[in-house]
Amino acid sequence: MSERKLLERIRKLAGAEPGPEMVAGIGDDCAICRPAGGGEDWLFTTDLLMEDVHVLRATHPPAAVGHKALARGLSDIAAMGGRPKFCLLSLALPPWAGTRWVDSFYRGFLQLARQTGTYLAGGDLARAEKLVCDIVVCGAVPQGKALRRNGARAGDGIYVSGWLGGSALGLATRTGAAWKRHLRPEPRLELGEFLRSQLHASAAMDLSDGLSLDLHRLCLESGVSAAIDQPLPAFPKASHEQVLHGGEDYELLFTVAAHIPVPPAFGGLPLTRIGSITEGRAGEVELFGKALPALGYDHFREET
Amino acid sequence: MSERKLLERIRKLAGAEPGPEMVAGIGDDCAICRPAGGGEDWLFTTDLLMEDVHVLRATHPPAAVGHKALARGLSDIAAMGGRPKFCLLSLALPPWAGTRWVDSFYRGFLQLARQTGTYLAGGDLARAEKLVCDIVVCGAVPQGKALRRNGARAGDGIYVSGWLGGSALGLATRTGAAWKRHLRPEPRLELGEFLRSQLHASAAMDLSDGLSLDLHRLCLESGVSAAIDQPLPAFPKASHEQVLHGGEDYELLFTVAAHIPVPPAFGGLPLTRIGSITEGRAGEVELFGKALPALGYDHFREET
Repeated sequence: MSERKLLERIRKLAGAEPGPEMVAGIGDDCAICRPAGGGEDWLFTTDLLMEDVHVLRATHPPAAVGHKALARGLSDIAAMGGRPKFCLLSLALPPWAGTRWVDSFYRGFLQLARQTGTYLAGGDLARAEKLVCDIVVCGAVPQGKALRRNGARAGDGIYVSGWLGGSALGLATRTGAAWKRHLRPEPRLELGEFLRSQLHASAAMDLSDGLSLDLHRLCLESGVSAAIDQPLPAFPKASHEQVLHGGEDYELLFTVAAHIPVPPAFGGLPLTRIGSITEGRAGEVELFGKALPALGYDHFREET
Repeated sequence: MSERKLLERIRKLAGAEPGPEMVAGIGDDCAICRPAGGGEDWLFTTDLLMEDVHVLRATHPPAAVGHKALARGLSDIAAMGGRPKFCLLSLALPPWAGTRWVDSFYRGFLQLARQTGTYLAGGDLARAEKLVCDIVVCGAVPQGKALRRNGARAGDGIYVSGWLGGSALGLATRTGAAWKRHLRPEPRLELGEFLRSQLHASAAMDLSDGLSLDLHRLCLESGVSAAIDQPLPAFPKASHEQVLHGGEDYELLFTVAAHIPVPPAFGGLPLTRIGSITEGRAGEVELFGKALPALGYDHFREET
């Protein structure tokens, strides 16, 4: 069962419509909720980070694990054009994580929290055989303004921020700028707010599981196809495979109506047009005229 | 390092005061947040439920695991006198959890969600060696009215709901009413709202880690001592140890000013006065005149 099929199953079982305060539930980067009286929508996201799945004890320094645990959640807030408010962290510590490890983990975590104005409001603590972090981030956008996955329309330009494949290259080589990139992804919060407030992006999401899979997902949610017909912005030395399918870059993937000019960069970060949204079967992605399989990271893909 | 010491360390590292919208952060059953414009405070809690820590594959049916994952979070909302709004679930599935297990898990989860008006708004999915569930529940109370751990004052009566030790007895025997009690704890949501709105309880928390430890924690947060001088309401056949120290009963522990009459039961659930809050060293608990050690469940207690 793929992650998507499992999600569809859960959506179906959950059945009931969202309550009066919910704007959107399962299926986007964040759930969206509308508190009465204010002018804001609140965004909620959770992300698991687990030993031997997302991080390795031997190679990932504790401060980087703390940074990454929070960055994953912040990236979902960025994808919707939100500003983070607070977070909660559930943490299960393995026997090997002593006081020094825990202090260093929280220093990495809290440094990013302070940089981004995200208040650590609570969480849960437990012991387990392996490290488990589950981050919850709450953020906000002006009412009705959250960037969604489902707004892409035929004719829109498709864009990505930054360079792709760096995190996958780093995980493979464990050296240099690519490894640093893998260890310390930067949630694109300022860019997300710019896409929302200035460019009025029609759709956006963060690139957590690889361009091929994430663009496929965005197209599925929007009921459109995509044609990639421009060179992709490759991280230096990243392979074609890493650029197309590598996960954990945490750059933003977004679409903008054709009449809106998109600057070539934002705050030093390149914004690259890679193709266009097209009419066609929902979820289909072409790369220079050939079907691109969605080979990004899926926890639930059947072994073949 | 005990859980409390670890929490103190995290609080100290986190340092900064809560943001303008936060009413309370680390240290109570829920974080409390105040959205602008509305008349409500919003409560947020997270709770981990893990294989071989909280549940066993061999003995815990999937629907009970789903029920319990959500019940743990709802119990924290109940402890503050809140009404649940929505939840998010992060779920890491082990290889042995196939489609049937997952369906049954969600049926148990969603049945309790529907009963309590809790909308499943999102979450995260991953694969792992062992089952991990992390539940996030958002609830609400009228502004400034959340029941806290820190409001108990000398002279207040100390009360518990229901019968104690049933869950620990059930885990030990795996039969009968006690086992059912262990598998399907009932979050005391209606009682929590009654304690808040009718009895104006001075402090409350849920009994998740055993009376001795949880009462110690309530007294620490309130800066008071406690004297238990009445018979404890024991679950049938539960041992003295199970009644005093057994975890996962998810009953409510609360204190009420002496002049407020407390009915003997609420909706069929007994409310038992077990003693009084006293002046003395913060956190000290006496049982019929003798010091009661806080032996409830602490993930982080040093082995002795």
